Amino acid sequence: MFESAEIGHSIDKETYEKAVLELREALLDAQFELKEQARFPVIILINGVEGAGKGETVKLLNEWMDPRLIHVESFLLPTDEELARPPQWRFWRKLPPKGTTGIFFGNWYSQMIYARVEGDIKDARLDQAIGEVESFERMLCDEGALIFKFWFHLSKKHLKERLKTLEKDPQRSWQISPLDWKQTEVYDRFVRFGERVLRRTSRDYAPWYVIEGYDENYRSLSVGRIILEGLQAALKVAERRAPHPHAAPLVASLDNRSLLASLDLSRALDKDEYKEQLATEQARLSGLMRDKRMRGHALMAVFEGNDAAGKGGAIRRVTGALDPRQYRTVPIAAPTEEERAQPYLWRFWRHVPARGQFTIFDRSWYGRVLVERVEGFCSQSDWLRAYGEINDFEEQLHNYGIVLVKFWLSIDQETQMQRFKEREEIAFKRYKITDDDWRNRDKWDHYADAVGDMVDRTSTEIAPWTLVEANDKRYARVKVLRTLNEALEAAFKSK
Amino acid sequence: MFESAEIGHSIDKETYEKAVLELREALLDAQFELKEQARFPVIILINGVEGAGKGETVKLLNEWMDPRLIHVESFLLPTDEELARPPQWRFWRKLPPKGTTGIFFGNWYSQMIYARVEGDIKDARLDQAIGEVESFERMLCDEGALIFKFWFHLSKKHLKERLKTLEKDPQRSWQISPLDWKQTEVYDRFVRFGERVLRRTSRDYAPWYVIEGYDENYRSLSVGRIILEGLQAALKVAERRAPHPHAAPLVASLDNRSLLASLDLSRALDKDEYKEQLATEQARLSGLMRDKRMRGHALMAVFEGNDAAGKGGAIRRVTGALDPRQYRTVPIAAPTEEERAQPYLWRFWRHVPARGQFTIFDRSWYGRVLVERVEGFCSQSDWLRAYGEINDFEEQLHNYGIVLVKFWLSIDQETQMQRFKEREEIAFKRYKITDDDWRNRDKWDHYADAVGDMVDRTSTEIAPWTLVEANDKRYARVKVLRTLNEALEAAFKSK
Repeated sequence: MFESAEIGHSIDKETYEKAVLELREALLDAQFELKEQARFPVIILINGVEGAGKGETVKLLNEWMDPRLIHVESFLLPTDEELARPPQWRFWRKLPPKGTTGIFFGNWYSQMIYARVEGDIKDARLDQAIGEVESFERMLCDEGALIFKFWFHLSKKHLKERLKTLEKDPQRSWQISPLDWKQTEVYDRFVRFGERVLRRTSRDYAPWYVIEGYDENYRSLSVGRIILEGLQAALKVAERRAPHPHAAPLVASLDNRSLLASLDLSRALDKDEYKEQLATEQARLSGLMRDKRMRGHALMAVFEGNDAAGKGGAIRRVTGALDPRQYRTVPIAAPTEEERAQPYLWRFWRHVPARGQFTIFDRSWYGRVLVERVEGFCSQSDWLRAYGEINDFEEQLHNYGIVLVKFWLSIDQETQMQRFKEREEIAFKRYKITDDDWRNRDKWDHYADAVGDMVDRTSTEIAPWTLVEANDKRYARVKVLRTLNEALEAAFKSK
Repeated sequence: MFESAEIGHSIDKETYEKAVLELREALLDAQFELKEQARFPVIILINGVEGAGKGETVKLLNEWMDPRLIHVESFLLPTDEELARPPQWRFWRKLPPKGTTGIFFGNWYSQMIYARVEGDIKDARLDQAIGEVESFERMLCDEGALIFKFWFHLSKKHLKERLKTLEKDPQRSWQISPLDWKQTEVYDRFVRFGERVLRRTSRDYAPWYVIEGYDENYRSLSVGRIILEGLQAALKVAERRAPHPHAAPLVASLDNRSLLASLDLSRALDKDEYKEQLATEQARLSGLMRDKRMRGHALMAVFEGNDAAGKGGAIRRVTGALDPRQYRTVPIAAPTEEERAQPYLWRFWRHVPARGQFTIFDRSWYGRVLVERVEGFCSQSDWLRAYGEINDFEEQLHNYGIVLVKFWLSIDQETQMQRFKEREEIAFKRYKITDDDWRNRDKWDHYADAVGDMVDRTSTEIAPWTLVEANDKRYARVKVLRTLNEALEAAFKSK
């Protein structure tokens, strides 16, 4: 894989200088066009052997291009805010918005390769990490990102030469790698595991480019040209799209029996039972949230449901039990401008709770496979791929110890009509029924299909859906609280 | 000041329950209206004696109101990301956007009072902190915020009772204060310094409300009513405005001699001088940025100037000297939606560099007193108060050790015309001259006045303006680099 990066490529000064003049102009033009279109971000990953010119090349790119539109990020030591959340969070928070370029040093690849070289992880864990990264990059590309992955290579002989030069030059001492490159074995292992990673993660939508790093002219020009050509091609495409996913429509229920229809909506609690059970479950939740084992976890609750199913009331019974400093409620409405400039899941990642904290989502990332699907706010391929992306997301949360509880509050059409009417009679402006509410009601069956598919595809062992029979508000509220408590207790026990 | 909060206020259960019913409805309505208008944020500060019901009241507010529109923030221990920036940063990053409510525990008042009670600071420092907070709150109110400041009080006798109860009740053990309240002296000092702070910071635009905390009913109802009435009044006002500032127009220059006109724009460097000096200054900057004393500082550079004065080129000569991981360039364009929902300076605070880092602002917070003033994008009172707000901001940066360097790149009209024409001849789309550029040119004199006022009012010892004669690009670039270097060296020496 690295053979052709050890053959001593080089370019003479004259050729180089002539080529660079044109290249710079073209790069600036493309960068300007990228900003004007603001349709996609560019992500450049910088990896490879120490001393092969990674830092110098990035410095050069900043000189050639407009540095105001480039963010260089180096992920060395995580901050304590980052350590308190799943490891993916730090990458999400630094993603470049559409129209701009992010250059990532010390990215997801460096971390897994360093860990493998140093023996902190074995092949199995490395392959697992590779799998996660593949899904992540695939998602980024599906969302429009243009990804360049550069591997700067040096032969062992050239590395030795470079290390000697570097030692003498304090100007270049900022090249940082946790590995001890003076050991021959480090190089061998680095190249071996690097190859494994490259082999498995070079994909049409995000290929690796191996660059021989020995000759500065060759290296710089190669990287510049690859970026230019990739960028120009992407700018020309009317709409950036990864190859179409398997787009066969989901199979509609053949016997007209749906998951939701199978719920026993007559379940109810009388006032006394409610009072007692509510108090019990609230006290239990309050205790669990103060349990010291909570410090190793975080809690996320998702509330979805029919309009007027009582999400707000249920949420208030949950928060009523808690210290307001320990939870945060996030109502999901239309994305802001900054959120629209990022991949779909970005606006949820930004609210992932730190360890010990609890975040309640009033509506959630499931909007994509519910309202956006039914109302046609996104394309079919967008919502079809969302199931997989959501499962990946939830697995990342789970792996970090976050307990995720998802509720669908279900009522029947009759109950909904009754509640709409009640609301119309109440004077409070905040309960005004909007045209949207009536329109959603007309699409009752479409929503029921969407909910069925959603549950089938995203109710997993690590993050199961809880369907809540919500015709009776009291029953629903107690069930919500109890489910949260059981999930937390299970998590505490499993550790 | 606390006398009437020790007289044993109380409300009987029946009166309370009746009143609360109405209060809750009215609060929810007002909160809904706040969200709909989305014109201003509400900031509620919670302070006072331990055990006086601070936590309980906030919990209650979350029950009474819609918790989805309330953010409760507790500023106990700063994170490492916060410690790496001026102390005000952590408050700025948590400000509630317009239409929502932020409840701040452990806020700026708690911190100064705790420090004074524990003897970490003396009165002089306390008064200094009070002065800073006054400007901060004044600015927030000028930007539209509605601030409630609650002081929960208990007499010494009642405090002792409460402490006994609290000890027995693990449910309430989350009340955290760094002070040892069992010592009588702590109470005395807390009340004494609290009074000093309250006296000096109770202002018409952000008054303190002292609440007797002993009787739960009385306390809850009082707080609820104060918030309701304040909120309703603010919602009614067509546009929230603090009392008008002194709005006399700035004095125009009487003798037609302006600061900018006094610059010697003929200054120039020939090619050889330039090459040599540029290399020298770049190497010097590169060395300074790697100096270990840099870890105790951060660098911020502001670039303002006439259109086509060469800001971009100067910035690139600066970044050309540096490791791209150490600097970030922030181009200032129109604010995003999330930025518009915050006070004016918020979008600059979010880019304040961490220790050891360097942020370059291509245009800056001075937009308010330049383009926004000249083009009428903000009201006169907005830009008139901006001078003071900016000086406060820069002082906060300076006090933390951030070196701030501000450049105005100045060219004459003839040079500008020449550069515009050159740009029009170049094919690159990115250099297209827009109508805006020509329009700004027509307002040359207005801009010159604005620049003069800006320099007069914001060129301070801690953050002086550097006027750069930029008719000759080479001269300008070297002067920029040299000024940065001198500022860094001066800062390193002064420590």
